[in-house]
Amino acid sequence: MIDFKLTVLGCGSAVPNQNANPSSQLLTYRNKQFLIDCGEGTQMRMIKYKLRHRKLDHVLISHLHGDHFFGLVGLLSTYHLSGRQSVINIFAPRKLEALIGHHFQLTGTILSFPLLFHALEDYKGAFLYEDDELFVRSFPLKHSTPAWGFLLKEKEKKRRIDKAFITAHKPEVEEIKRILNGADFISNDGILLKNKTITHDPLPPRAYAYCSDTAYAPSIVKVIDRVNLLYHEATFDNSMQDKAQQRKHSTAKQAAMIAKQAGAGKLLIGHFSNSINDVGVLLKEAVEVFEHTEICREGETYPVAPTN
Amino acid sequence: MIDFKLTVLGCGSAVPNQNANPSSQLLTYRNKQFLIDCGEGTQMRMIKYKLRHRKLDHVLISHLHGDHFFGLVGLLSTYHLSGRQSVINIFAPRKLEALIGHHFQLTGTILSFPLLFHALEDYKGAFLYEDDELFVRSFPLKHSTPAWGFLLKEKEKKRRIDKAFITAHKPEVEEIKRILNGADFISNDGILLKNKTITHDPLPPRAYAYCSDTAYAPSIVKVIDRVNLLYHEATFDNSMQDKAQQRKHSTAKQAAMIAKQAGAGKLLIGHFSNSINDVGVLLKEAVEVFEHTEICREGETYPVAPTN
Repeated sequence: MIDFKLTVLGCGSAVPNQNANPSSQLLTYRNKQFLIDCGEGTQMRMIKYKLRHRKLDHVLISHLHGDHFFGLVGLLSTYHLSGRQSVINIFAPRKLEALIGHHFQLTGTILSFPLLFHALEDYKGAFLYEDDELFVRSFPLKHSTPAWGFLLKEKEKKRRIDKAFITAHKPEVEEIKRILNGADFISNDGILLKNKTITHDPLPPRAYAYCSDTAYAPSIVKVIDRVNLLYHEATFDNSMQDKAQQRKHSTAKQAAMIAKQAGAGKLLIGHFSNSINDVGVLLKEAVEVFEHTEICREGETYPVAPTN
Repeated sequence: MIDFKLTVLGCGSAVPNQNANPSSQLLTYRNKQFLIDCGEGTQMRMIKYKLRHRKLDHVLISHLHGDHFFGLVGLLSTYHLSGRQSVINIFAPRKLEALIGHHFQLTGTILSFPLLFHALEDYKGAFLYEDDELFVRSFPLKHSTPAWGFLLKEKEKKRRIDKAFITAHKPEVEEIKRILNGADFISNDGILLKNKTITHDPLPPRAYAYCSDTAYAPSIVKVIDRVNLLYHEATFDNSMQDKAQQRKHSTAKQAAMIAKQAGAGKLLIGHFSNSINDVGVLLKEAVEVFEHTEICREGETYPVAPTN
């Protein structure tokens, strides 16, 4: 079972077309779900792709362009009409709170569940979410309106005890806990076994990063260092670099440069302009810089895992 | 070619499901298009059903429940991003204007086209739209928030000149105009031909009416008298009559009673509650009262025409 995965609900740009819906992604980490952006029709695509989202209680909105949030009030309405009782946390630019309130005031809705709104402006460097295993943080992107990227990353893990050692020495539960915390072990015949000889290095923390919408922004590289999976917008191709710069979007090549500099495992590119006729050109451009690039596909689920 | 037709983009109730999207319909009359309600995802379904909507310049919003208007700002955004220049007229409850403004203020959008907002509260009995051939009017429904139905109806037509008369007497253009306005005709051999003997009764004006959302409201019958096509919500079945009354919705039987009293040509029922497992029950219930009932189907186009 894949316990850390991303399902893409929409990876088109601002104007939808037959094959591309506005931005939204559902990230699942064990028993937690995070919705990243919520373009119009997100709730319908969760139905279409038969995605259960009962564990969804955090919504992250990157910026206030309609193709990244016009589906949010519809989703919240559906939760309300379905009698949801559990909290929803929304992390978004501050001004969205009043707009959500305006909607529900107009429709005469008193939500059936607590909605906790968190302004991204208040979270400089601080975690948006944190538990024993995972943290979520935001980081500034470079767009025509304030925009944030998101990093969802496992915490550093403990060392793993060698199986042959356990079979041979049958340590008790309390001893195992001590070993996991770095202690050495003295065997029944009095021999000191150093911690490093009976444990293995921990699995590296897995991580996913979402960067959309943004111009080329090397400042984000250190934040998304060695993520396993990176979604980075690639609205234009390299021949449209000027337009990309002007509109604060990226080219496919620039997305790949970010992935390469960050040492990412895999890059997904999306948010293609409707003026792009052949996305194959974008893929080729990106792969020349960063081999492990894929075109992002709606409805597809991608594991957040070390690249083979 | 069918010059008066309705295409259904969504006829589900408030919570979407695999087969039902929120309310929206595109009505085409010759070279005019009217969008009636605009639930979330309406623009995507216009793309899905390959509907050209370049002639669309009037949007009618029945009431301020989200499943009837959450797709509007997305559609307007797309028009803006596509560089639309021609006017859009929106007829909706007054409070929607400020919400639309709030959206575009938040997204920093100065629309590329003029948006003329008309508050339905100001149109008691007055036409929302009128040209030489067609008029559109609204009428109050009975719902839990102020709601309006819409009637789109041809104007009374002129009499039609008998073809045999034209062949025999070859009247000139000016004479034809006079005859169409009711004048008699004097033949070359001096015989008076009374207007009624050389013309036929005009074709009856065709009409479509939209009634959603509403409780059973016989007061609307006189307004929608003899419409060719009637869309009437049927959220519940007859066994749920109390719930319908309480929530200000209709049962399928009540929708059929309205169609029967109005002498409608055909009734389409939709807006079914997700608690309905078998819509066949609703159809049976309605057909028992009004034979020409159909289940409304998304993506289907219905002519507004005399029933055969």
